[in-house]
Amino acid sequence: MGSVDYEYPLGMNIVQGMQHQVEVPPPQPFLKSLKYSLKETFFPDDPLRQFKNKPPSKKLMLALQYFFPIFEWAPKFTFHFFKADLVAGITIASLAIPQGISYAKLANLPPILGLYSSFIPPLIYAMMGSSRDLAVGTVAVGSLLMGSMLSDEVNPNQDPNLYLHLAFTATLFAGIFQASLGFFRLGFIVDFLSHATIVGFMGGAATVVCLQQLKSILGLVHFTHGADIISVMRSVFTQTHESKKQPRFFWVSAMAPLTSVILGSLLVYFTHAEKHGVEVIGELKKGLNPGSVTKLVFVSPYMITAVKTGIVVGIIALAEGIAVGRSFAMYKNYNIDGNKEMIAIGTMNIVGSFTSCYITTGPFSRSAVNYNAGCKTAASNIIMSIAVMLTLLFLTPLFHYTPLVVLSAIIVSAMLGLVDYEAAIHLWKIDKFDFVVCMSAYIGVVFGSVEIGLVIAVAISVLRVLLFIARPRTFVLGNIPNSEIYRNVEQYPNAKHVPGILILEIDAPIYFANASYLRERITRWIDEEEDRIIATRETSLQYIIMDMSGVGNIDTSGISMLEEVKKITERRELQTWFKWVEELEGENVSMDSHLKREYWNSSLVLVNPGSEVMKKLNKSKFQNNLGQKWIYLTVEEAVVACNFNLRASKTNLKKDESEGWNNV
Amino acid sequence: MGSVDYEYPLGMNIVQGMQHQVEVPPPQPFLKSLKYSLKETFFPDDPLRQFKNKPPSKKLMLALQYFFPIFEWAPKFTFHFFKADLVAGITIASLAIPQGISYAKLANLPPILGLYSSFIPPLIYAMMGSSRDLAVGTVAVGSLLMGSMLSDEVNPNQDPNLYLHLAFTATLFAGIFQASLGFFRLGFIVDFLSHATIVGFMGGAATVVCLQQLKSILGLVHFTHGADIISVMRSVFTQTHESKKQPRFFWVSAMAPLTSVILGSLLVYFTHAEKHGVEVIGELKKGLNPGSVTKLVFVSPYMITAVKTGIVVGIIALAEGIAVGRSFAMYKNYNIDGNKEMIAIGTMNIVGSFTSCYITTGPFSRSAVNYNAGCKTAASNIIMSIAVMLTLLFLTPLFHYTPLVVLSAIIVSAMLGLVDYEAAIHLWKIDKFDFVVCMSAYIGVVFGSVEIGLVIAVAISVLRVLLFIARPRTFVLGNIPNSEIYRNVEQYPNAKHVPGILILEIDAPIYFANASYLRERITRWIDEEEDRIIATRETSLQYIIMDMSGVGNIDTSGISMLEEVKKITERRELQTWFKWVEELEGENVSMDSHLKREYWNSSLVLVNPGSEVMKKLNKSKFQNNLGQKWIYLTVEEAVVACNFNLRASKTNLKKDESEGWNNV
Repeated sequence: MGSVDYEYPLGMNIVQGMQHQVEVPPPQPFLKSLKYSLKETFFPDDPLRQFKNKPPSKKLMLALQYFFPIFEWAPKFTFHFFKADLVAGITIASLAIPQGISYAKLANLPPILGLYSSFIPPLIYAMMGSSRDLAVGTVAVGSLLMGSMLSDEVNPNQDPNLYLHLAFTATLFAGIFQASLGFFRLGFIVDFLSHATIVGFMGGAATVVCLQQLKSILGLVHFTHGADIISVMRSVFTQTHESKKQPRFFWVSAMAPLTSVILGSLLVYFTHAEKHGVEVIGELKKGLNPGSVTKLVFVSPYMITAVKTGIVVGIIALAEGIAVGRSFAMYKNYNIDGNKEMIAIGTMNIVGSFTSCYITTGPFSRSAVNYNAGCKTAASNIIMSIAVMLTLLFLTPLFHYTPLVVLSAIIVSAMLGLVDYEAAIHLWKIDKFDFVVCMSAYIGVVFGSVEIGLVIAVAISVLRVLLFIARPRTFVLGNIPNSEIYRNVEQYPNAKHVPGILILEIDAPIYFANASYLRERITRWIDEEEDRIIATRETSLQYIIMDMSGVGNIDTSGISMLEEVKKITERRELQTWFKWVEELEGENVSMDSHLKREYWNSSLVLVNPGSEVMKKLNKSKFQNNLGQKWIYLTVEEAVVACNFNLRASKTNLKKDESEGWNNV
Repeated sequence: MGSVDYEYPLGMNIVQGMQHQVEVPPPQPFLKSLKYSLKETFFPDDPLRQFKNKPPSKKLMLALQYFFPIFEWAPKFTFHFFKADLVAGITIASLAIPQGISYAKLANLPPILGLYSSFIPPLIYAMMGSSRDLAVGTVAVGSLLMGSMLSDEVNPNQDPNLYLHLAFTATLFAGIFQASLGFFRLGFIVDFLSHATIVGFMGGAATVVCLQQLKSILGLVHFTHGADIISVMRSVFTQTHESKKQPRFFWVSAMAPLTSVILGSLLVYFTHAEKHGVEVIGELKKGLNPGSVTKLVFVSPYMITAVKTGIVVGIIALAEGIAVGRSFAMYKNYNIDGNKEMIAIGTMNIVGSFTSCYITTGPFSRSAVNYNAGCKTAASNIIMSIAVMLTLLFLTPLFHYTPLVVLSAIIVSAMLGLVDYEAAIHLWKIDKFDFVVCMSAYIGVVFGSVEIGLVIAVAISVLRVLLFIARPRTFVLGNIPNSEIYRNVEQYPNAKHVPGILILEIDAPIYFANASYLRERITRWIDEEEDRIIATRETSLQYIIMDMSGVGNIDTSGISMLEEVKKITERRELQTWFKWVEELEGENVSMDSHLKREYWNSSLVLVNPGSEVMKKLNKSKFQNNLGQKWIYLTVEEAVVACNFNLRASKTNLKKDESEGWNNV
């Protein structure tokens, strides 16, 4: 028989006819594909989409509305909206004033700064922010973080002025950092703070704050009326905590802090407790925010501390503000543009740092109250701002007798809501790894420091992503009975092995970080399959089909890996081939049969490489090396072709045997 | 008509009958799946596999052979192997001696250390190493790196003894680090040095070294015979470089250094050039390696430098040794166990640090010579070691007159081979990103320092992996004509859109790092599809099918993202529904039709979630929320079901219209 018949196994052309071609995507100029990649990386939401095919005047209006959403909602503002926002604004103001004073204390700053920070920033946000529900103001965790980081450098009791100026400077840098992230479309950096990280981090911060404040609350038992106040507080807080689940009673939690402040102040005022050891706020300066541009510190070593604090506090504040904004946007079915929000929050902190404010963002608790109070637009922030302004102008003397213990209680009350143990249980149930991330953030914050907790949690999260790439899952596929579908045999225990063929699926891009692992793992799959075959006396392994559907991309190390796997399979298959020939021939394996072996070409078959992978296989010549006919579009087609070859080769071999080996 | 008919769209049961069930994998106990994950992470090659079902004595022998492969090959060692290894060993010794002396100079160490380091470490490697081709000795890049890092701390000219002791200590820590990586199965850390990084890094280091040595070579022009020597050298190096591609002439490159040393020494000896300004090596101490255990430095601040240097030099040496070992194992079709190699290389450096050796590994150039000279086993290293031993005992005086310029020339010659511009061009052609990584390593090393280059390249490589996760590709799928196959329309331009249905494919795990991006990108796909539909007047968009085949895993943030996408699609679809009803009904859209809408349930359909994803969807109740019947095994089945629903709902709607809206 002639050698021509060997060029392709018998009937291969028939199989080829059935096969769909795996296509190399049309070549794209380098610059075009670079442009596409950059667009996908930095502008996934395509913000310029709405500007297309519009007249210039319309474009200008759209741009104005893009950067200042107030121009979008203000023209549609109705009296109905006004009524709703008025109620919501006054409600959140009643929360913002006592919380502002308390949180400033947490940051080791003068209490009045909490009020200043609830006046200017909400005005800026009302113009630039795209959330309708975010109630802007100071936050507990941000205050704590800033307080702890700045105190490492400057003692707030020994040098209160320098400390204050450092706080403004850190706020400026936080704002610049936040706005730059948005401007340079780097919002995805915030995404690396996963939900699990934030749950653990917030819980840890809350625990630390509660332990700190406990001291100040427990100090109270020496005071005659102390126990009563505590029990009053307790009942208030119990209500506060329960009301989380009952939105109808949200006003209980909303009004509790102000009520406590009023009751506490009255109590101190009438009992003159301040003269018996109960610390009170003391005098608060009347009047609006003084300017603070001249107070910014740009000299080393303080500036470095300010920059570091600004970046850490800025990113945490951003993560909270954006997460809160997004959650409420989800409930009300509107969209939040992350990068735009970053610019808004950043600008509000930059302006804040010029007007005696420290770090602000959108706290969850206050925004929830805003939402429950029925706010319609960002105008509720303006109302709150006006209420705080009136307080600053006329009502500051009223806080003179407010006992500090009430502030501690307000802080503890807010903090208890942050220990979200239910979320932690949820994480444990669904994803153990997320739970580990959450707990390490918690433990890091509680036993180390806020920065350590944050670094550990982010590091573990990133490690997880890297581990996913470094150790991708590989699966053996089997045929689902009565179908042409091939699926993971672990997930579908009734899926059947195809005799003589090992079908593998890889579920990750093949990169330098996993190329060695995959080579070893694939070798082991082959070993295990051969063991199984020996045990079950099935047809010996002839083909390895690799389903590349899940391989999103490949790099040069990955292509080398495929080349190595091809060599490995060929070497193994050669051994099997020799064994097979030996069985038929006896011991005299001639070189001819080895040569003839090459007619069957590869024993590695690829299925459905995606466009990126196909492009690179093509450019690297691996495609030619493997042979285009060994790349199939579906597993079924590959299996049909392999089975055909298996039969054809056996037939040929037997035919050869009868005709003798030497006439080729 | 009764409401019962609405419970499922007409004929849904028929469609259900055709459908294959997507299965939740059988639940596994937490510890079992943890054990599996740990095994896959740390023991992907399953090293204990060969020990299974063997008697204890056999197990002991296998364990001995596992840690000391010499017990495996020594019993099979034949005279034929001996002849081959003798030739190879002598050849690499002739290379190792002059290179050893030269590289020690590069590390600012006494030249004799190069010889010491070519005596003990090869003996250790011959016993423990699993490569048959690696020629162990000092390497240029490792020497340079150690020299530059240690010189930052201690000046080698002012305090040569302390410097020397620091070098031993750094070697000890390098060895400990290398062996621990292997012992704790952390070999994958080395994988993060991609091929592209190493090409750029080596090229950069070579450039730096060449520029350094140029000074010393150019200093020669003042000497009368200088120009001649340079031209002699040049011709030798041209040959050396060309011989890379002509294995037959490998001995030219192998012998060139020794020839240069002999010629150079003779020239100096007879012209007395050492008295006319040509620097020579001078006296080399006779005798074998002295012990150096007592010389190790464990006091701060030196120890910190030693640890840091040890880790950096150790990992670079490891990367080179393992990459070289693997390449040659590939040619000869045998396996290298990365973790075992790390233990071997680590042990050889630990023992080395006790016997006056500095960092050693398997350099590419010398191993290539070994391979070309026909080495069969690691015995060639023993032969080389014996040759070096004889040199140390008897021949050191011969190097007295060797001019330093010859050593510089040897270094430059070896370095030129490291500037692998062809590999860089290859990277540019196949993968632009790999090229960027390579060039940043190069530029970092040349314009910054070796450490900076390394850190930049690794950071960019890791950033790429993170970017892949943060910005996964999403594709629109279309139906390939005359088939049930759905593929990416970019890659298969003839694939056809299915009217009313948008089929999306996601090619990466859905994690916290990409959940926001994917939500935005999917929203944009829907927007774009709706624009397209308006332009082409097709059926309005009713279903979003998400092909999850490529989604290897999902975390809690990812599940939230799916829930959000479900809400988004439902909201959009509701709008379409209202429009549709309006068309049929006029302006009077009643609440009834809204309620009725719910009978059609979801407009988000998932296809083929993998086992991990299915597990988590199930645990998080998203599966119930979506409805099991909205998860299909193949895209074709999902499309059939959606099309069926589309027709059924239209029919029902028209039927209702004729019957009036209010009788439901």
